[in-house]
Amino acid sequence: MSMPRTATTFTPPVMEARRWLDGVTFTDALPLINVSQAAPVDPPPEALRAHIADIAMNVPDAHLYGPVLGLADLRHEVADQFSKAYGGAISDAQVAITSGCNQAFCAAIMSLAGEGDEIILPTPWYFNHKMWLDMQGVRTVPLSTGDDLLPDPEHAATLIGERTRAIVLVTPNNPGGVEYPDHLVQAFFDLARARGIALIIDETYRDFDSRTDAPHALFADPDWSDTLIQLYSFSKAYRLTGHRVGAMIASAPRLAEAEKFLDTVTICPNQLAQHAALWGMQNLGDWLAGERAEILDRRAAISDHFGLVKDQGWSLMGVGAYFAYVQHPFDIPSDALAKELVQQAHVLTLPGTMFMPENDPAGQRQMRIAFANVDRREIQTLFERLARVTL
Amino acid sequence: MSMPRTATTFTPPVMEARRWLDGVTFTDALPLINVSQAAPVDPPPEALRAHIADIAMNVPDAHLYGPVLGLADLRHEVADQFSKAYGGAISDAQVAITSGCNQAFCAAIMSLAGEGDEIILPTPWYFNHKMWLDMQGVRTVPLSTGDDLLPDPEHAATLIGERTRAIVLVTPNNPGGVEYPDHLVQAFFDLARARGIALIIDETYRDFDSRTDAPHALFADPDWSDTLIQLYSFSKAYRLTGHRVGAMIASAPRLAEAEKFLDTVTICPNQLAQHAALWGMQNLGDWLAGERAEILDRRAAISDHFGLVKDQGWSLMGVGAYFAYVQHPFDIPSDALAKELVQQAHVLTLPGTMFMPENDPAGQRQMRIAFANVDRREIQTLFERLARVTL
Repeated sequence: MSMPRTATTFTPPVMEARRWLDGVTFTDALPLINVSQAAPVDPPPEALRAHIADIAMNVPDAHLYGPVLGLADLRHEVADQFSKAYGGAISDAQVAITSGCNQAFCAAIMSLAGEGDEIILPTPWYFNHKMWLDMQGVRTVPLSTGDDLLPDPEHAATLIGERTRAIVLVTPNNPGGVEYPDHLVQAFFDLARARGIALIIDETYRDFDSRTDAPHALFADPDWSDTLIQLYSFSKAYRLTGHRVGAMIASAPRLAEAEKFLDTVTICPNQLAQHAALWGMQNLGDWLAGERAEILDRRAAISDHFGLVKDQGWSLMGVGAYFAYVQHPFDIPSDALAKELVQQAHVLTLPGTMFMPENDPAGQRQMRIAFANVDRREIQTLFERLARVTL
Repeated sequence: MSMPRTATTFTPPVMEARRWLDGVTFTDALPLINVSQAAPVDPPPEALRAHIADIAMNVPDAHLYGPVLGLADLRHEVADQFSKAYGGAISDAQVAITSGCNQAFCAAIMSLAGEGDEIILPTPWYFNHKMWLDMQGVRTVPLSTGDDLLPDPEHAATLIGERTRAIVLVTPNNPGGVEYPDHLVQAFFDLARARGIALIIDETYRDFDSRTDAPHALFADPDWSDTLIQLYSFSKAYRLTGHRVGAMIASAPRLAEAEKFLDTVTICPNQLAQHAALWGMQNLGDWLAGERAEILDRRAAISDHFGLVKDQGWSLMGVGAYFAYVQHPFDIPSDALAKELVQQAHVLTLPGTMFMPENDPAGQRQMRIAFANVDRREIQTLFERLARVTL
């Protein structure tokens, strides 16, 4: 007797966490600080909104079905900009547009694995990755990381077996915040290629990487597409979360396989969303640089103010992109603590247990703070509140 | 050794058919008549486009993440209008909005079945349904239909086994065009309930049903949600195919399961699309009635002009909604004929083989004509051209 696929996995964590707010009264004196989810809270700049409105009024095709793998112009723009940014050769045919980056991950897995196959995910992991693997009957092999949150390729090598189909890296990392060094990414690529498996790199947060050079040199390898699958999101860069538009960069034959899945699950990506992403890529470079500077300043604010809780025994394991990942000092599991923080400090975080196998005790000591939506002042307030928590 | 999930299924038929056009020169004297896909070719009415533009400019939230199961106002509108239309009680909590109706089907299956389970599909089937079942490791049990294209509940009863999780009906049917009589739908519902399995009814084309009353009375059963899952698309009614917005109507606990899948695969439906669908439902009733009248007139044109090919041995098996399903008189399989029709008649159809198990010879005699995009005059021309085909 098999289980329905959805019964094999857990409730979406962000929604579960939102339910912890039920019945709690937030006051002007102590308003909610919501650091549970990483997403823009403001709309795109007015010029981009005006462009979307213009397309909606004046481009009839933007309301009709488009190509399954996305608009040719957007595929070309991604190929062009990413080739330059990474110092490599990515062709238009190696770019697919998806309904968000989650869907790009789903499509990549569908093209790689079947029932009973295995995928290696460093822990802490991004929960939607784990949920998709669960629902697809694919076994997640956790690759534990140490206090620096960096996965070890030699350790990973020992986990590769006959059923292993891919290793997944998220850099800058969600939930860990760490930016993987280029030599580490390269080592994983070399390992994956040597063992004949794929390397999936989810670079949803690449636009907020603190490094100004390319974060890795994988695309400079003329044969990158025999091993590499890169995932990207337009949601964070251009504040398009509600539009659902992401990308998958891989070999053309793999995209032809992904196309079967994408056709069946959504037929095509939303057309206005694709026009918006294209316009953003072509016109919002300077604006995005400002967004990045603001996020980097918030990241600095995390480090600047972390001293407020250090004496209480908190430690900062990783910080970067939209996230800080911390270790808490209390003798209760992080999921119980997260609920307690809502009650006592009016702070909503996600506990490490949501990013970890159930049997891994590390998750019980850890919390994710998604700081992209809170400014410097609120970050200070956040740590002031955490410093006062008593259990 | 398992196969990647995408390797278990076939290339999307609509795209495969499009490739048959490569290298063929169409002339003003004999332009292409494309009856391969059922989709509006014009944009939504100007007032709806203006509404989308207005939302894009002035509603900040429309650019940001929304609820996984869709906007509350749209869920409410669907619940309200469908309750009235079907004479039943559908609550807001029993409506989920999805990124198109294909995704609603995927979500329904994910909540019902796992590896090795079985789903019964009447043949000819809608190919994306088959593709999803293939990719999910779910065995499709074909339920063959006769010359009237109506599935037989007694026959279906003999196909239900221990692993059967649901029967899927599409009415008005794609590809068959037939509208299932209410008593037939009721008989399938009674069968499904008696055997403890689900009944999925895909009503993508309900707005173009020739009947003015509710096409079935299932929602009048106060316990409908123990058995019934209804799927709907906003794409055809309001010309929103490029926006990707559909619906799944089922019990609230089932939608909570579907939510895991929807969160993982797209996070939320596109927000502008949902605003567009809502405005359409609230303001385009009269306009939609005109659209329906036009489609019904084209349906009549199919019947009016079918005499042009009757003497050549063609027969009309079903006609309704966007489709006519026909039997051809030639001694070659329908997929070979379809390619020949492109060359000889500049007509693009989909062959019956695309809607059938490979080993079912019926598909080799059948063709689908998606007539929604061709007007009365073109329908006449279409049959004039088919009448001249020689092999």
